[in-house]
Amino acid sequence: MKSTAILLLHCPDKQGIISEITKFITDNQGNIVYLDQYVDHEDGVFFMRLEWELADFMIPRDKIEDIINTLYRTRYHLEFNIYFSDEKPRMAIFVSKMSHCLYDLLARYKAGEWDVEIPCIISNHETLRYIAEQFDIPYYVWPIEKDHSNKDEVETKEMELLKKEKITFIVLARYMQIISERMIETYPNHIINIHHSFLPAFIGSKPYHQAWERGVKIIGATSHYVTSELDAGPIIEQDVTRISHKDTPHSLIMKGKDLEKIVLSRAVTKHIERKILTYNNKTIIFS
Amino acid sequence: MKSTAILLLHCPDKQGIISEITKFITDNQGNIVYLDQYVDHEDGVFFMRLEWELADFMIPRDKIEDIINTLYRTRYHLEFNIYFSDEKPRMAIFVSKMSHCLYDLLARYKAGEWDVEIPCIISNHETLRYIAEQFDIPYYVWPIEKDHSNKDEVETKEMELLKKEKITFIVLARYMQIISERMIETYPNHIINIHHSFLPAFIGSKPYHQAWERGVKIIGATSHYVTSELDAGPIIEQDVTRISHKDTPHSLIMKGKDLEKIVLSRAVTKHIERKILTYNNKTIIFS
Amino acid sequence: MKSTAILLLHCPDKQGIISEITKFITDNQGNIVYLDQYVDHEDGVFFMRLEWELADFMIPRDKIEDIINTLYRTRYHLEFNIYFSDEKPRMAIFVSKMSHCLYDLLARYKAGEWDVEIPCIISNHETLRYIAEQFDIPYYVWPIEKDHSNKDEVETKEMELLKKEKITFIVLARYMQIISERMIETYPNHIINIHHSFLPAFIGSKPYHQAWERGVKIIGATSHYVTSELDAGPIIEQDVTRISHKDTPHSLIMKGKDLEKIVLSRAVTKHIERKILTYNNKTIIFS
Amino acid sequence: MKSTAILLLHCPDKQGIISEITKFITDNQGNIVYLDQYVDHEDGVFFMRLEWELADFMIPRDKIEDIINTLYRTRYHLEFNIYFSDEKPRMAIFVSKMSHCLYDLLARYKAGEWDVEIPCIISNHETLRYIAEQFDIPYYVWPIEKDHSNKDEVETKEMELLKKEKITFIVLARYMQIISERMIETYPNHIINIHHSFLPAFIGSKPYHQAWERGVKIIGATSHYVTSELDAGPIIEQDVTRISHKDTPHSLIMKGKDLEKIVLSRAVTKHIERKILTYNNKTIIFS
Repeated sequence: MKSTAILLLHCPDKQGIISEITKFITDNQGNIVYLDQYVDHEDGVFFMRLEWELADFMIPRDKIEDIINTLYRTRYHLEFNIYFSDEKPRMAIFVSKMSHCLYDLLARYKAGEWDVEIPCIISNHETLRYIAEQFDIPYYVWPIEKDHSNKDEVETKEMELLKKEKITFIVLARYMQIISERMIETYPNHIINIHHSFLPAFIGSKPYHQAWERGVKIIGATSHYVTSELDAGPIIEQDVTRISHKDTPHSLIMKGKDLEKIVLSRAVTKHIERKILTYNNKTIIFS
Repeated sequence: MKSTAILLLHCPDKQGIISEITKFITDNQGNIVYLDQYVDHEDGVFFMRLEWELADFMIPRDKIEDIINTLYRTRYHLEFNIYFSDEKPRMAIFVSKMSHCLYDLLARYKAGEWDVEIPCIISNHETLRYIAEQFDIPYYVWPIEKDHSNKDEVETKEMELLKKEKITFIVLARYMQIISERMIETYPNHIINIHHSFLPAFIGSKPYHQAWERGVKIIGATSHYVTSELDAGPIIEQDVTRISHKDTPHSLIMKGKDLEKIVLSRAVTKHIERKILTYNNKTIIFS
Repeated sequence: MKSTAILLLHCPDKQGIISEITKFITDNQGNIVYLDQYVDHEDGVFFMRLEWELADFMIPRDKIEDIINTLYRTRYHLEFNIYFSDEKPRMAIFVSKMSHCLYDLLARYKAGEWDVEIPCIISNHETLRYIAEQFDIPYYVWPIEKDHSNKDEVETKEMELLKKEKITFIVLARYMQIISERMIETYPNHIINIHHSFLPAFIGSKPYHQAWERGVKIIGATSHYVTSELDAGPIIEQDVTRISHKDTPHSLIMKGKDLEKIVLSRAVTKHIERKILTYNNKTIIFS
Repeated sequence: MKSTAILLLHCPDKQGIISEITKFITDNQGNIVYLDQYVDHEDGVFFMRLEWELADFMIPRDKIEDIINTLYRTRYHLEFNIYFSDEKPRMAIFVSKMSHCLYDLLARYKAGEWDVEIPCIISNHETLRYIAEQFDIPYYVWPIEKDHSNKDEVETKEMELLKKEKITFIVLARYMQIISERMIETYPNHIINIHHSFLPAFIGSKPYHQAWERGVKIIGATSHYVTSELDAGPIIEQDVTRISHKDTPHSLIMKGKDLEKIVLSRAVTKHIERKILTYNNKTIIFS
């Protein structure tokens, strides 16, 4: 695998932008290996993901951002991020007591499915330490008092750890605590949560019980970026499974676990591949 | 097809009820062709659908209800309904301006998929009269004033028609008016609506626009019995389809149409087959 | 809706082709309203769909093909087709005895869902004439002898009709006859069939019986372009539905009908929108 | 959880059998907690799953089989099996080199999702020993020569181990070897395989490559009991996922992994719960 640069951008839609930017890459000997774009005609916004090989690219990697800035930001009102395929994202996992999502994430990591580092697992409970030990990953526990009196203090420690470990994004693998504004602002659209319902149905706690009470015929799971409004951030992925009147709250929980882990891992995959753009509290997912 | 009797019942769960009732049918020379039962262990309720041939059954059909009443109602606190396969349900369709569900219902009717009569189509608009004419079904239009000042009067006429035509159940095929308490009480759990969202998400009007605003990755449709609370009656059937950031409100409407007609027709099928029991604002759907 | 030109092309992948072609359109005052492209890195092939408004485009519409030919065909080894949004495709429907797909197609047509003309319905049976009459569309019947002795003669008449009616593509809506080489060659990748199985499982006749015999837990339907090999042409769309051991061949047929009509209509939609490219017996479907 | 007896039976359909058997259980003070039955009207076969509490049941557990034999086998031509909920099934896992199914099985086992024992993992490669060690489960490796010259000998050792460990059923978690007749006959309908296609499409090796070659729009996975004919045993569970022309053989493999592990684990769940009956190379799956 050759090293590549990945450019994710959006800007007001304007004729000629694709041809200009692709020409810029090509003229500088960048071999484009991926281009996908999308125009939101309702809002008049242009989105693009461009990936090119760095090998013969004439602009040094530490100058690329600066040059794109200079050439295009003002002219096109461009918002963009540059990533390099050989700089692995660093992922922290937050868990509470349920193991299914954590196992699924770590099994993929161990099998080499993802180009990612996982330097730490953080929890408010000791419960899942044995899994971290199975996979030889440091496990940090800071219990949170029932009255949340120490929550601020705990979060300060967590953020020190995240900083020290150069964490680039966070995965909440059925972590049962509200994330504070402070952490959300430090990782905007970089904290992925899995909610165990088909959002926006059944926001909040015990969604499977809510679903059973309502008598729905299909249940779902939703992965989304965390924002300050509960369960209301940009949706990355959803999936559903059929149920019947024979299901109980318990059987919904069991069926839901399979949904949760698959839906969460699909979101993590897309994030690691830098294929997600967020805009207006929605996601553009490149394929 | 031999004529059959269909018994739909529920009662508090009690040992021996299946064996007693099946024995009663068998002892009276009824050939059982269908038996399905379900126990809700949370609430301790027993549900059963039993169907047997009338040919050699020793109890005359007009005495069956009375005898089951006498023998079992008090003893088992039984709630039940008896239907006969050779007495076709009579279905009224209510429509407004959209044709896709109406066409789907009538195409099935005309192709003989359903053992049902459709004596009338009722609307508040002239728009779809041409379809009724294509299928030679009487089409009645009573416009409703914007201020709803004549709604009570219109509904009185509608209910006279329903009575005259001996309508046994009503299908709202994208009918854009609220049904009154009076009509709901006359047809309890016998008015089927199609809502164009995955309930309980996006209750009320313009659900596809709501879905697009929220940025969901899957949309759905829900058929349910109408109760006095909006979009909150017992759910009969739901289905979903995957969408992406490329979809617009318009494309959601187009994709949703296919969901709506399939989901509505599945519910109508189950109702016509007398395979739905309602309990606690939920449905038990026998297969 | 402003008139647009639609360019569907593929060629060996080569740096700079997107920027060159989009620049060509833009330089000639064509306002690009749609661009989607895809690179098959396995085979090194580039595919693109480009749509631009004709209003201010400086090249007259009858010269566009010629100019693209001259400028790019040789240089890029381009294969391409040009369509104009205001020139509606003309669709012929072939049917035998089953009505569900025909009703679904005509209901969409009548409701104005599709930008298409349907000048004729062709059959080997009188069975569905009443539907054609319901929708006021000419219905032509040429019975085919059981020994197929007159098949060649019938097809000659059919092809005369197709020519006379300027038919651009054909939809086989559960048409139970093999299409000859001659007709396939006249309409290459322009005859859409619906096969009532999840291809390549259950090729040939009675696929629902085959599925029931095999005891599958999911059934499907497949729409594809017709090629000379039976049920082996490029797949356009597939969908599935869950079944159980309780299903019979008859109930599979009933459930399958809903799949067939939806899957066929989705394929027809994509074809009418000129969003399908075929290559190597596969389809590229733009969204 | 109280201990229960589980009776799985089938026999020619005959009036009165449900009432007679449920009466027998009830008369002997067995509290029935589960009853589900199904009649295959095509073949005239009756299937039932009955579960009752052993606490007050007047017949000792070691006499139950004998008594049912005496009372009903001849009279009803009954085929049946008796299981006890407190006698856990013992499961052996066979693997080769891919880890995703193994991790998924062991994560569920460790989380206590299943009432099962897993005394051993058997492989023809050392590759996955680290996972067995992570979960503290004995891992046995017997390499198989490329010419299969030692296959018989290896299988003898494997069967000795299975016998010693009192294995009741086997799960092939992407085990890439053909199972011999001898082992199949020892575990008839008790060896569960996961095949990475939507059977009967793409039997044999490299199904994702076959699927990619054919250009399907949906891929699937199938869990089934192993019989002597390759990939042709009774299907337990299937599921599918949508793909597009953008997928490569590699991305199909990645997407397929999620299907495989979910579909395999659903089958294992049903098997452990003793909810599967096999008949005529099909499964009846109780819910």
